[in-house]
Amino acid sequence: MAVEFVANDRSYGVPERPVLAVCADGWDPGYVDDALERGLMPRLAETLSSGGSGGSGGGSGGGTYVIGRAQVPTFTNPNNAAIVTGVSAARNGIAGNHYRDQAGHEVQVTDPSFLRAHTIHAAAHAAGVPALCVTAKDKLRRLLADGGVPSFSAECAHEQSLPDGTPLVDVLGAPNPGIYDWQLSPFTIDLALAVAQRLGSLLVYASLTDFVQHSAAPGDPLSDAFYAAVDAALGRALDAGFVVGLAADHGMHAKTAADGTPNVRFLDDALTAGGVTGAHTLCPITDPYVVHHAALGSLAWVHLDDLDDLDRARGVLASLPGVEGVLDRFAAADSFELPADRIGDLVVLADERTVLGKSRAAHDLSALNGGLRSHGGLHERDVPIIVCQPLKPGAVAGRELHNRDLHDLLLNHVA
Amino acid sequence: MAVEFVANDRSYGVPERPVLAVCADGWDPGYVDDALERGLMPRLAETLSSGGSGGSGGGSGGGTYVIGRAQVPTFTNPNNAAIVTGVSAARNGIAGNHYRDQAGHEVQVTDPSFLRAHTIHAAAHAAGVPALCVTAKDKLRRLLADGGVPSFSAECAHEQSLPDGTPLVDVLGAPNPGIYDWQLSPFTIDLALAVAQRLGSLLVYASLTDFVQHSAAPGDPLSDAFYAAVDAALGRALDAGFVVGLAADHGMHAKTAADGTPNVRFLDDALTAGGVTGAHTLCPITDPYVVHHAALGSLAWVHLDDLDDLDRARGVLASLPGVEGVLDRFAAADSFELPADRIGDLVVLADERTVLGKSRAAHDLSALNGGLRSHGGLHERDVPIIVCQPLKPGAVAGRELHNRDLHDLLLNHVA
Repeated sequence: MAVEFVANDRSYGVPERPVLAVCADGWDPGYVDDALERGLMPRLAETLSSGGSGGSGGGSGGGTYVIGRAQVPTFTNPNNAAIVTGVSAARNGIAGNHYRDQAGHEVQVTDPSFLRAHTIHAAAHAAGVPALCVTAKDKLRRLLADGGVPSFSAECAHEQSLPDGTPLVDVLGAPNPGIYDWQLSPFTIDLALAVAQRLGSLLVYASLTDFVQHSAAPGDPLSDAFYAAVDAALGRALDAGFVVGLAADHGMHAKTAADGTPNVRFLDDALTAGGVTGAHTLCPITDPYVVHHAALGSLAWVHLDDLDDLDRARGVLASLPGVEGVLDRFAAADSFELPADRIGDLVVLADERTVLGKSRAAHDLSALNGGLRSHGGLHERDVPIIVCQPLKPGAVAGRELHNRDLHDLLLNHVA
Repeated sequence: MAVEFVANDRSYGVPERPVLAVCADGWDPGYVDDALERGLMPRLAETLSSGGSGGSGGGSGGGTYVIGRAQVPTFTNPNNAAIVTGVSAARNGIAGNHYRDQAGHEVQVTDPSFLRAHTIHAAAHAAGVPALCVTAKDKLRRLLADGGVPSFSAECAHEQSLPDGTPLVDVLGAPNPGIYDWQLSPFTIDLALAVAQRLGSLLVYASLTDFVQHSAAPGDPLSDAFYAAVDAALGRALDAGFVVGLAADHGMHAKTAADGTPNVRFLDDALTAGGVTGAHTLCPITDPYVVHHAALGSLAWVHLDDLDDLDRARGVLASLPGVEGVLDRFAAADSFELPADRIGDLVVLADERTVLGKSRAAHDLSALNGGLRSHGGLHERDVPIIVCQPLKPGAVAGRELHNRDLHDLLLNHVA
């Protein structure tokens, strides 16, 4: 086996101990800080030097918890892609869960062919390092199955088998929870550990789901149960000898008006009222599972049939309350390291309390049961990055860490 | 003497050979590529493996030339501050050449007290490492004189003396060129070398001026003379045994309409016409030397007396042709690593061909002699970063370099 391999110009060391990197979907720092403070995550706490986000090595556990930066838009696919490739969306090509192709069709970004950079796992696999990806949702598994890396999803565990034919559900001996069951995420970690043991995987990626975070604030009973269960699963990984790290893909905020109802700006409706026809808003949060967010996030692309409407459209969108910025395609690509051909002619940013939709008719708000918690904009960009084992001196100090640096920390900087 | 010192959480090694770091003011990559291609910079060329920006080590000279990123806004003070502190404006506090204080006064940012992070040179000086800063313009010298670092300016050489009383002009034996003389920049490098020799300086910073770049495009006779003269001065530094590196503070583009006249949007005028009163545009390019750019750059702050006008002002500004983005204070601070209290309520970005002014009455365009070349926005963010000596393996690959990494490269990564 190689001692190191290269993925997208970065060198990664082949670990001596198995490594588990977790994409902690929707783990706003508020959840982690709250769970640590109230003692809901004892296994994680004991690996860290202090309970808060200021802790960084040096304590009895010697682990590290810092706040890093997520890829904008702060949605799931762009950030999973950033974490597994180690590079920005400008290089890996994944700017949303969804995009509008040249022909004007909205396309789900679920196929590895959309990736413009190979994954770290594909590079490891090619170098003979046993790698494994396990996701909560199957749509993400497909994207991460780049380069023939063994990949499974908790969602479809009842339909998948190991290479030796063992049904995946038999590996854990428990049926997989449903996609809107809060236990799907801890199940995903346990499934990853069990499959890794069967396959002898050295580099394991487990990507969770943020259904809980969309539904419950820090301190809610559902959140408490969730973080305690994930902590127990992480403890099982530590007990099994794994080097364990986590990075969130994005934060999460309530996106509600003073009366508790969803605080939405419908951009196609606003543009029509402002005299702009031929505008097409695309919500890059869109995915097949919309019960928890109704495809409403805090960043949207707007495509125009006629670029002569650009100035007027920019003005209409920028005047909306709750919109905190509008950028042209180039400006957005440059500001946020995005692939210019996979975003809108305009990129609209909403503030911490506001989400953006296409039109009132296009979103089913009834499924939300009143409230709405979501993400996608700049206010969900600060994310926890956690490594449970001690890091070498200088691994973190002075660095501006992104969640895409998680594998660099785990493979190059663990002491 | 220490073997290393820390500045703003980054460790820097004390060099064995003297190091010259040059802030190459306004060196758009277009100038460097053109000068190298046409053989105008033979000393720089022989240190690089190839003539173009793709070159990165490995050649006979073994030097490195990569394109890195500048601090936005792409003005002189924020980028000099970033280069000398090694951290972003969010941390060092310098977001413009100018800012509007709480009382509504526009203030030049020339005093070290504005710095919220100490300079690398101040940290070196405190650790007993002889450091030196020499600038073309005296306004910048004052900002960089943080921590008692010996600092001089070419502009005021006729008024300054070395600690032993030697008049600065006697050190070179030549009178200092004027502020609008193209020879001021090569003179600055020669002055830095001569003073460094007298003082035994190990860590030397020389910051040039961009009068030439504001006046002349790549390939113009003035540019050709300038780059040839700077190359000769860099050659003298190499011959004197210096490790030599350069980073530009920003690029430069023509900001003219089809008829060659300056392409300006006057934001206070537009806001008044759009029904917003009590708006105050601040051009953070503003400095005492305005002949070459008339205080017009491609980024401006807008302050509002009444934040209830924010949505309307945002809409008015965003609808202007040539404006490619408008961001609220938080969004801009988050997007570009800026100190939120030192920018406007709104931040306006102009495109590659457009600059932003306050009002038609506030800017004297007659001094421009017709044309205008300037900077300040996203299109001047790509900058050359050059190190003339070989770097250690892995110093550049896979890193997203900023000009603020120049001292890290020179002090930590030279082979």
